[in-house]
Amino acid sequence: MATSRDAVIPQADRMFEGGTHKLDVWSIFTPANVPADCINLGQGFMNWAPPDWIREASHKSMDQDMMSNHYAHPRGRPRLIKALSEHYSPSFENLVAEGRKLQTDEIVVTAGANCGTYAAMCAHLQPGDEVICIEPFFDQYFATIVFNGGTPVYVPLHPPKEGKQVSGSSDWTIDYDEFRAAFTPKTKAVIINTPHNPVGKVFSREELTELSKICIENDVLVIADEVYDCMVYDDKEHVRIASLPGMWERTLTVGSGGKSFAATGWRIGWLIGAPALTAATLAAHTKIVFCTNAPMQEAVAIGLEGAKEHKFFETQLQEYTERRDILCSYFDKLELPYTKPDGSYFVLVDMSKIKVPDDFVVPATCKGRGKDFKLCWWMAQTLKVVAIPPSEFYCEDHAGIGENFARFAFCKDPELLHAAGDRLLKLKEYM
Amino acid sequence: MATSRDAVIPQADRMFEGGTHKLDVWSIFTPANVPADCINLGQGFMNWAPPDWIREASHKSMDQDMMSNHYAHPRGRPRLIKALSEHYSPSFENLVAEGRKLQTDEIVVTAGANCGTYAAMCAHLQPGDEVICIEPFFDQYFATIVFNGGTPVYVPLHPPKEGKQVSGSSDWTIDYDEFRAAFTPKTKAVIINTPHNPVGKVFSREELTELSKICIENDVLVIADEVYDCMVYDDKEHVRIASLPGMWERTLTVGSGGKSFAATGWRIGWLIGAPALTAATLAAHTKIVFCTNAPMQEAVAIGLEGAKEHKFFETQLQEYTERRDILCSYFDKLELPYTKPDGSYFVLVDMSKIKVPDDFVVPATCKGRGKDFKLCWWMAQTLKVVAIPPSEFYCEDHAGIGENFARFAFCKDPELLHAAGDRLLKLKEYM
Repeated sequence: MATSRDAVIPQADRMFEGGTHKLDVWSIFTPANVPADCINLGQGFMNWAPPDWIREASHKSMDQDMMSNHYAHPRGRPRLIKALSEHYSPSFENLVAEGRKLQTDEIVVTAGANCGTYAAMCAHLQPGDEVICIEPFFDQYFATIVFNGGTPVYVPLHPPKEGKQVSGSSDWTIDYDEFRAAFTPKTKAVIINTPHNPVGKVFSREELTELSKICIENDVLVIADEVYDCMVYDDKEHVRIASLPGMWERTLTVGSGGKSFAATGWRIGWLIGAPALTAATLAAHTKIVFCTNAPMQEAVAIGLEGAKEHKFFETQLQEYTERRDILCSYFDKLELPYTKPDGSYFVLVDMSKIKVPDDFVVPATCKGRGKDFKLCWWMAQTLKVVAIPPSEFYCEDHAGIGENFARFAFCKDPELLHAAGDRLLKLKEYM
Repeated sequence: MATSRDAVIPQADRMFEGGTHKLDVWSIFTPANVPADCINLGQGFMNWAPPDWIREASHKSMDQDMMSNHYAHPRGRPRLIKALSEHYSPSFENLVAEGRKLQTDEIVVTAGANCGTYAAMCAHLQPGDEVICIEPFFDQYFATIVFNGGTPVYVPLHPPKEGKQVSGSSDWTIDYDEFRAAFTPKTKAVIINTPHNPVGKVFSREELTELSKICIENDVLVIADEVYDCMVYDDKEHVRIASLPGMWERTLTVGSGGKSFAATGWRIGWLIGAPALTAATLAAHTKIVFCTNAPMQEAVAIGLEGAKEHKFFETQLQEYTERRDILCSYFDKLELPYTKPDGSYFVLVDMSKIKVPDDFVVPATCKGRGKDFKLCWWMAQTLKVVAIPPSEFYCEDHAGIGENFARFAFCKDPELLHAAGDRLLKLKEYM
């Protein structure tokens, strides 16, 4: 991964000349680029629609309340702010201990979690500031940091020891000495993603406590990317980083309406944190997009308000658990080692055993990338199943850690997962 | 106006300390801050909903097409891209001359026109680049430039000579020598807004030809902010800057679904331009928000597809014309000089005759600002009509040009405009 915005933006500084830049993984593996009959377990969107009862109520709101079609308050529509406060407050231990709920000035609604993170970086970074990312990391973080004048610094999660068929959250480890050594006087922020994409790791209380202590020692801002917070399986404890001692005043927690309600195209996210942190972020977000789209804010508010009555999150979690287990059963059959995710909707599979035929030719877009790009491209062409090569989620120096793996998304219905699984069984012929 | 992002973002570089920053005009005059019984002719949103037929069809689309709830292609949903090409192509003289329509790679759908402009600046500016703005200018331009490492450079429009009751587009003049003198080797871009907010000026073909020549001489990018392009009155010619000779390859034209369909909260905008310009902008926009909300893209596509059948734009234009004339009739009665807008939905009124009582006290937020802040605050408190002080749309050095004026929005129904007009007639007592 390169280190400036020119790597991401073609012709950024050469207006009328051609320029080259490295194509992102999403553009390479976009449906238009792979065979039409592929089953797509690549990009993490659901192949079902958000609930009827949310859509119906949101249509009514658009029809009956003129203002749900006009500029929202830049902070967010009051109805959504209130719904977020009601829904989220009980999940922050510090707020429960204080016997209080989130206040309006502790919440900012954003144009997706993506723009929330971008606005936070825009607000808090100064040129030359460093931001620590734990690898593998959601690839959008890179531009989010670099476009706002920052420099990413990488600390890897260490993968499970070889030989284990099924690994878990605790098998991906962080070396606290490595983490501590990554801090410099220029470090302004750390991004921690739990539940983690693409590993599926849910960081334990002990791990987050250790990381928190080091963040406090170094007096940095923490971006807690918890967009998969309603996909935590098998009663695994999901600890909110912001609720740990000393963390509230330095943590912005990122949430996602798209992930929560199977509506990735609604582009509603939010940031939760102390007023000093949200005020700056709100100011930046207001300049970047002015405000977030109003009709879908209304839809997400309706979803949060009605979730209990409809047992929405419990049912959804049960469905995701089944889907995870369906997909994993095929990797068991194949005896391909994988990490059984405690959270998120991704399975990271160790593909080292698979031998891509020597004479298989990859397109230019995959050349010079990790061998996982070759494997995933071959798998799309030959087996007609799309997965994502996770070396994209590592810096160049560490790409080797990621290139043995492939990321499969299970936010698809059981029928499709079985169909994909059946295709994947052919991998046996290539071991 | 200050010159760095710290002026816009509180605590940007002082994470845990209090910070001060100048509050923006929208936050000062937000409905929550003025008396509840005010009539709001401040912020430019309509007090009516977007058409039934668009809302109904878009509800159906959300219900019947799962994918209108999920990630859109970062460039925009194909249906909207096609609708934009059909609708816009005939309005670009160069395309008509070439006998062709806009291609997919000449369009990018953005999270509102605001984020479109932001993404364009993010894509094309390098630190230290200068961007020329014609004053008065939409205040969001400032942060859009500064947050992306640029420096704004200002060239004023010169207001009408005193003594004229009703001025027009040609009475606000640009001094081409001043414009030419604003260019330096660091100049990367120019923003030209026509129809113009807040003046209502529609730049003539002659004016745009002169400005274009200077832009070409200096080999700069032009951002043509034409978000009010469907509000051009009295058959005044609206010339697209991008269609002038030599301009296509250097111009990004900005459009707005919210302005076009009375849906300011849908946050759908677009950029039109040559592939080299849109490719960079798409890359930046993809990193900032990933993609634009899908359901409202569908709604705007439906609106564009059905506009002809419903005679939508013709009817809307007629209604805006009536509304403009209602509001202006009160300034005629008051004998307050104003600019009769040829485009947009704002009337800029010369308030020099009005004497705010000496003992009237303004809040801290209005102190140290142009005298128009005092007048508008007083008018909201006393007459219960909100207007916007346009010195916000000038740099500090030029704020004096703007402070004799107030900006009134007429994107309100006739009843409300008459009610506001009746209240404004009391201004007579203060001349």
